Amino acid sequence: MSNWTRNTKKIGELATGHELTIPVYRFAGTDSNAPRVYIQANVHGAEVQGNAVIFQLMKQLEKLELQGDITLVPLANPLGINQKSGEFTLGRFDPITGVNWNREYQDLTPSLSDWFEAHKHLPTEQFIAAYRQSLLNSCHQQLDSPWGVTTGRRLALSLQLMAHEADIVLDLHTGPKSCKHLYCPEYTRDAAGLFSIPCVLMMPNEFGGAMDEAAFYPWWQLTDYVVSRGMTMTPAVEAYTLELGSQERIDMQDAADDCEGILAFLANRGVIKADIEPKAMARYSCALADYRKFHSPMGGLVEYLAAPGTPLSAGEPLVRILRPDRFGESEQQQTLCLPEDSIPVLHFASASVYQGTELYKVMTKYTRLS
Amino acid sequence: MSNWTRNTKKIGELATGHELTIPVYRFAGTDSNAPRVYIQANVHGAEVQGNAVIFQLMKQLEKLELQGDITLVPLANPLGINQKSGEFTLGRFDPITGVNWNREYQDLTPSLSDWFEAHKHLPTEQFIAAYRQSLLNSCHQQLDSPWGVTTGRRLALSLQLMAHEADIVLDLHTGPKSCKHLYCPEYTRDAAGLFSIPCVLMMPNEFGGAMDEAAFYPWWQLTDYVVSRGMTMTPAVEAYTLELGSQERIDMQDAADDCEGILAFLANRGVIKADIEPKAMARYSCALADYRKFHSPMGGLVEYLAAPGTPLSAGEPLVRILRPDRFGESEQQQTLCLPEDSIPVLHFASASVYQGTELYKVMTKYTRLS
Amino acid sequence: MSNWTRNTKKIGELATGHELTIPVYRFAGTDSNAPRVYIQANVHGAEVQGNAVIFQLMKQLEKLELQGDITLVPLANPLGINQKSGEFTLGRFDPITGVNWNREYQDLTPSLSDWFEAHKHLPTEQFIAAYRQSLLNSCHQQLDSPWGVTTGRRLALSLQLMAHEADIVLDLHTGPKSCKHLYCPEYTRDAAGLFSIPCVLMMPNEFGGAMDEAAFYPWWQLTDYVVSRGMTMTPAVEAYTLELGSQERIDMQDAADDCEGILAFLANRGVIKADIEPKAMARYSCALADYRKFHSPMGGLVEYLAAPGTPLSAGEPLVRILRPDRFGESEQQQTLCLPEDSIPVLHFASASVYQGTELYKVMTKYTRLS
Amino acid sequence: MSNWTRNTKKIGELATGHELTIPVYRFAGTDSNAPRVYIQANVHGAEVQGNAVIFQLMKQLEKLELQGDITLVPLANPLGINQKSGEFTLGRFDPITGVNWNREYQDLTPSLSDWFEAHKHLPTEQFIAAYRQSLLNSCHQQLDSPWGVTTGRRLALSLQLMAHEADIVLDLHTGPKSCKHLYCPEYTRDAAGLFSIPCVLMMPNEFGGAMDEAAFYPWWQLTDYVVSRGMTMTPAVEAYTLELGSQERIDMQDAADDCEGILAFLANRGVIKADIEPKAMARYSCALADYRKFHSPMGGLVEYLAAPGTPLSAGEPLVRILRPDRFGESEQQQTLCLPEDSIPVLHFASASVYQGTELYKVMTKYTRLS
Repeated sequence: MSNWTRNTKKIGELATGHELTIPVYRFAGTDSNAPRVYIQANVHGAEVQGNAVIFQLMKQLEKLELQGDITLVPLANPLGINQKSGEFTLGRFDPITGVNWNREYQDLTPSLSDWFEAHKHLPTEQFIAAYRQSLLNSCHQQLDSPWGVTTGRRLALSLQLMAHEADIVLDLHTGPKSCKHLYCPEYTRDAAGLFSIPCVLMMPNEFGGAMDEAAFYPWWQLTDYVVSRGMTMTPAVEAYTLELGSQERIDMQDAADDCEGILAFLANRGVIKADIEPKAMARYSCALADYRKFHSPMGGLVEYLAAPGTPLSAGEPLVRILRPDRFGESEQQQTLCLPEDSIPVLHFASASVYQGTELYKVMTKYTRLS
Repeated sequence: MSNWTRNTKKIGELATGHELTIPVYRFAGTDSNAPRVYIQANVHGAEVQGNAVIFQLMKQLEKLELQGDITLVPLANPLGINQKSGEFTLGRFDPITGVNWNREYQDLTPSLSDWFEAHKHLPTEQFIAAYRQSLLNSCHQQLDSPWGVTTGRRLALSLQLMAHEADIVLDLHTGPKSCKHLYCPEYTRDAAGLFSIPCVLMMPNEFGGAMDEAAFYPWWQLTDYVVSRGMTMTPAVEAYTLELGSQERIDMQDAADDCEGILAFLANRGVIKADIEPKAMARYSCALADYRKFHSPMGGLVEYLAAPGTPLSAGEPLVRILRPDRFGESEQQQTLCLPEDSIPVLHFASASVYQGTELYKVMTKYTRLS
Repeated sequence: MSNWTRNTKKIGELATGHELTIPVYRFAGTDSNAPRVYIQANVHGAEVQGNAVIFQLMKQLEKLELQGDITLVPLANPLGINQKSGEFTLGRFDPITGVNWNREYQDLTPSLSDWFEAHKHLPTEQFIAAYRQSLLNSCHQQLDSPWGVTTGRRLALSLQLMAHEADIVLDLHTGPKSCKHLYCPEYTRDAAGLFSIPCVLMMPNEFGGAMDEAAFYPWWQLTDYVVSRGMTMTPAVEAYTLELGSQERIDMQDAADDCEGILAFLANRGVIKADIEPKAMARYSCALADYRKFHSPMGGLVEYLAAPGTPLSAGEPLVRILRPDRFGESEQQQTLCLPEDSIPVLHFASASVYQGTELYKVMTKYTRLS
Repeated sequence: MSNWTRNTKKIGELATGHELTIPVYRFAGTDSNAPRVYIQANVHGAEVQGNAVIFQLMKQLEKLELQGDITLVPLANPLGINQKSGEFTLGRFDPITGVNWNREYQDLTPSLSDWFEAHKHLPTEQFIAAYRQSLLNSCHQQLDSPWGVTTGRRLALSLQLMAHEADIVLDLHTGPKSCKHLYCPEYTRDAAGLFSIPCVLMMPNEFGGAMDEAAFYPWWQLTDYVVSRGMTMTPAVEAYTLELGSQERIDMQDAADDCEGILAFLANRGVIKADIEPKAMARYSCALADYRKFHSPMGGLVEYLAAPGTPLSAGEPLVRILRPDRFGESEQQQTLCLPEDSIPVLHFASASVYQGTELYKVMTKYTRLS
C-alpha cells in the first residue's frame, strides 16, 4: 500500500496565455537507499501507449511495497500531444521549428578534468551527489538565461530536472508501426533480459539528444574518466527508452503486459519488493550502429510485406511498391528486398511514400540474447 | 482481350510551375449501346486502396470481353496524395482553404422547366444526349470563367467532364478505420446486393458536393421533373461511392476481392460479358439520415472497443476514454456507449481526441438487405 | 468610470485533458433599456489585431459612461490561435476536419409560422424576449445532444449563447493582406458611415455560417415574416463583421483608431454617453454579390501590384506572375489584369501560388457612400 | 552576349510517381581559367526572392561578357516550395521528418592525413582537381547506397554535385521578417564589402549542414591541414549565403538591386568583365558566435518595435507583449529589451508566440566594416 501525490508542473505557455502543464505523480518508497526512479511517457505526441502503461503501473504500485521513490509523468508533452493535423497527431517535432522533441535534451557533462580535480577528495556518496548537483545546476542556469530558451528546450530541461534526481530513468515511446524494442546502454546489458521486449538496441557512449542519453551519458563519461585515472567506478545511473509497439494506439491489456515487464525490472533493481520473474521470450539484440534504415528508392504506394519482429532473410520480400501510373510497364509493381539478413523492427505509418522516405528500420548482425 | 490506352490529363499547376496530371486509362468496349463506365480513386489523399482495386480491375479487364467502354483514373488527386504531414497523408482537404476535396463537385442541373420546354420534343435517346451535353457545357463554362476557379473546383470539374460522359460512375474511397460500405442512391437499391460490401447507406435525392451526387443528382432531378409532367422516365445514370476499408493501407489480396465485387456489378449491368455471381454475405442498410456521428463528450486517450462492421446493442461498450491526468478520480477511465442499437461503420484514426472529435459513425435503424 | 468583471468560460477540452477557455469581460451599463453589446475577436487564429482593439476599447470604456452592458471576448478561439504551422498560425480552419471556424455558427431560426402563431399575442417587448429565448434554447439543445457536437460547433454555439443575449454584435476579424472593410446587413446601411472603415460589403438576407449572420439572420427572417403578415417591425438585432487590416499583425496605434470608430458607432446607438463623431473619410460599398474573387490562372511566384483600398481600372496591372522555370519564354513573366473596374480589398498572404489560388478579392460595381 | 542552356534535373519522386525536377541554367564563360560559379535559390520554400534575383541576373548575364561559367538553379526545392499550409508556405523543413532542408548537406571532407599522403606529390592544379573529384565521388557513393538516402539528403547531394564543380557558391535565402544579411567565411572577409548587403556574419571553420558550409568547409579543412604541414595554401573555393530580406515576398525592383551587388562581386572575382563598383553603404559585421537569438519569456501577442537593420541600444524597447487575458493586471502589456547593444537582423513572422518562440536574432559586439 503505497502513498502517492499528484502535482501539476508548468513547462510552457501558449500564445493565448494558457499554461502548458504536465501531471507529476510521486510514489514514496520506504528505503532512502533504494534507487529512485523516473518514468515519463508521450514526449512524441502520437505515442500514447506509454500513458496506458503508466496507468497500469500506478494501479500496481498502489498495491505493492515500494522501497525506492518513483516519479511518473504521463502526457509529458502537451504541445505535441494536442497538435493535430488531419486525423493524426503531428507530435514528433516542434510545429514551428521542425526540431524533434526527443532531440532537445542537453548533455550537461561538466569539464571532467576540472570537476574531478575539485571533487576527487569526496567520499563516493558525496562525490556522486555533487556530480548530480552539477547537472541540476546546469539545467537551472540554462533555463534562467536572459536570452531565453526555445519552447522545446524548456520542456526538455524541465523534464531533465526530474530525471537527474533519479537513479533509473525510463522514457516510454512507440514506433510508427512497430514491434516492441528497447534502447539499452551497453554497460547494463543485463537489463535487456528483464523487460517484456524482444528486440534490443545496444547503445554506445555517445550523445544524440534523447532523454535516455541525457540521463546516462554524463555518468558514463564520468565513469570512463575516473577509470582512466586508475580508479574504479560504475555508472550511478541507468536509463532506457522503451518502444512499446505502434503509435496512435491505446491497448489496456497490452499495457498490462508491459507493466509486468517494467515491474520485473524494478524488482530486480530493488525498487519494489516483489517476486516478479521476467517473461520468457526470444530476445535479440544488435549494436545501434547495425540498426539500419531502408529508404524507398522510388515514389509510390506501399504494401508492407515484412512483419515487424519476425526475422527476414536477405532477398526475401520486404515491401511491394505499386505504381498505378505505370500500368502495363515493368515498373507497375516492384518487390524490394534487403541485401542482408535482418529483423525488421518498424515501418513507415503511411501507405504512400516519396523517393527517400524511410520505409523500414531493421536490426542487422543481430544475435540471440536469451 | 480488350485494348486499352493511357493518357495523361492536366488538372492543375503548382507554384514551381510543375503540372499536376492524372493518368487516364481507357478500355474500349465492343457494343456502343452498352453502358459506359467511369471509375476513379484516391480523391482523398490517404485513401489509396482504390488504386489497388483499379489495378486489379485492369488486370482482369485485359482478359475479359468488354461491351461498354470503361475509363479508369487512379491517383485522381495528386495534390492531395502528395500532401504529407508527419508520417501521414494530409489529403482530405485543400491545405490552403480547408475545403474537403470531395465537396467541390458541382450540381450542374439546368433550370428544368426551361430546359424541358426546349427539349421535350426530342426522342428519348437524343433527349438524354442533349441533357448530358448541357452538363458538359456547364463544366466548360465554369472552367473558362475570366475570374478563374479554385484549385479544388478545377480538379472536380475536370473529373466531372469525364464522369458525365458515363452511364455508371464509381468513386473509390475508404474510411479512416473502417469496414467496407457503399453509398447507394435509393433508386438503384438492387445494386446494393451486387458489390462485395456489407454495409449500405441509402442516399436521398439531395446534393452535397460529392462526386456520386454530382453524377446522379441532375438525372434524378430530371426524372422527377419529367414524371411530375405525367411522363415516365428512370434516371439514365447511376453512381456510387465505394468505401473500401481503411485509409493508409494497400492490400493487393483484398483489392482482388473488391475487384470481383465490381465485376459482378458490371456483369449485371451488361458492361462486361461474364458470369460472375455476387458474393454471398450478410448485407445491411440504413437511410443516410440514420447514419449518425458520435462525438467525444470529453478530451482524452481512446481505446476503440467496437469493431467496425459488427452490430452493437444500445449500452454496449463503444470506447474507453483514458485520462492519465485524472488518476485516482472517477474520470480516470470511462466507458462510453450509444443510446441506440447500431452497426459501427468507422472510427477516428487517432487514439487521442479533443472534446467534440468524431469518434464513430454508425448505422442506426438498419435492416438486413439479403 | 465603469465597472467590469472578468470570467473564464470553458469552451472545449484538449486531448491531454486541458480545458480550452476564453476570457469574458463584462462592463455594466447604467440603463437597462440601452442596447446590450457583444464584441469578440480572433476566431480565426492569425487575425490577432481585434484583440488589440478590444484592449484599447476596454481602456476607453473604463473612463466612459456606459448606458448599455458590453461583453467583450478577446482570444475567442484558443485552439485556432495556438495552432502553429511553421512560422505562421494555421488558425483559419479546424486542423482535423478543415471546417472554417467562422462557418460553424448555426441558423437557429425556428419554424416561423408555428412560432408566430404561438406568440403573436404578446406585447412587443415580450414578443422579442420570447424570440430571443427560443434562440438560446436551441443553442442549449444542440450542446446537450447525446450524440455530441463537433469541436467547432461547440465553440460556435458557446459564443452564440453570449451573442444572442445582445442587441448589437461585433465580430472582429482581419483579411490576409487587406485594407479595412466591413460586412454590413442591408437593413442598417447607416452604420456603414460610423466606423473608421473605408470599404463596405452590403449583406443580403442569407445565412452562410458566420457569426454576424447567425446573430442577425433569425431577426431579419422574423421581421420579414411579421411584415408579410401585414404588421410592422424592424430587426431587433444588428450585427457586423469588422475586418481590421491584415492578419499576423499587432499595431496598438492603429487599434486606437479602430477603437475610436467603434466608440463613434456605440455613441450613435446610445450604448455610451459620449460625443464622438465618425471619422471623415471616403467610404465605398458594393453588394456582397459584387464582391468577387480572382483566382490565379497559373502556378508561379507573385508580385502583388495593386494596393488594397485603392481603386483600380479595368486593364490596369493587378499582379505580375514570375516563372523562373520558363526563362527566355513568353511565360517567364506575365502581368494580369481584371476585366472590370474594382477596388482591390485584400490579397493572398503568400508570394507563391498554385493554379486556382485566390489571388485577390475586389469590390466591383461599387459606389461612393459618403 | 553570352549563351545559355536550360536543363531539367531530376532530384526526387513523389508518391504519385511524379518526378521532382529543378531547372538548371548554364551560362558559358570564355576563359577556362576564370572561376566557375554556382548560384541557387529557394531551398527553403517560402524564401522566393532569390528566384527574382536569379531572374534579374540572367537578364544581365545575357548582355554581359562572361569569363567564367555560371550555373544558376532557381526553385531549387520543389517539394518545399509547393508545401502549403494555410495561406503560407511550410517549406523550411521536410514535412515528414521535420529536418531543416538547409541542414541536409554533407561534410565530404576525406580523412586528410590519408588523402594528403596519397596526393601531396601532385602539382597544385592537379592536387586541387583531385580533391574536388574526391568530393564528387563521395556524393555519388552516398546517392548510390543500397540502403537509399532520405528525400532531403538526395536533394542536398544532388545540389552539392553541382556546387562542388564550382569555385564560387552563392546560396540565396531570406529571413522571416528581415533586413539583408550575409554569411561570410572569415577567410574571405573582403567579400563582405562587395555585395549590396549591410549586415555580415563572419563564419568560423565549422560545419553545420548548410550549403555554404558544405562548399567551403572541406577546402578550409584541407588548407589548415596543408598549412599545418608547413606548406602554404589558400582555400580554392569560397561560398556565401545571402539573406535577401523577408520571405513570402517578390519585389523585382529590389531584386535588381541585389543583382547589382552580386555582379559587383563577380566582377571583382574576374567572373565577368565589367566595371561595377560595390554600392556605398554602412556595413556592419560580427562573429557568428555573437549573432544571438532572443526567445520570448512568455506566451502572448507581439508588436515588433525594433526595425531590422537599425542599431538598438541595450534597454531600448524591442517588442511589446500584449496579454488580453490579463487586462487590468501588470502583465496586460509588457515591453521587453535586450541586455546588450545590438543590431536586430530579423524577427519572427507571426504576431503571436509561445513561451520560448525565437522573437529576434540580433548582432551583438558588432563592428563597422566600411
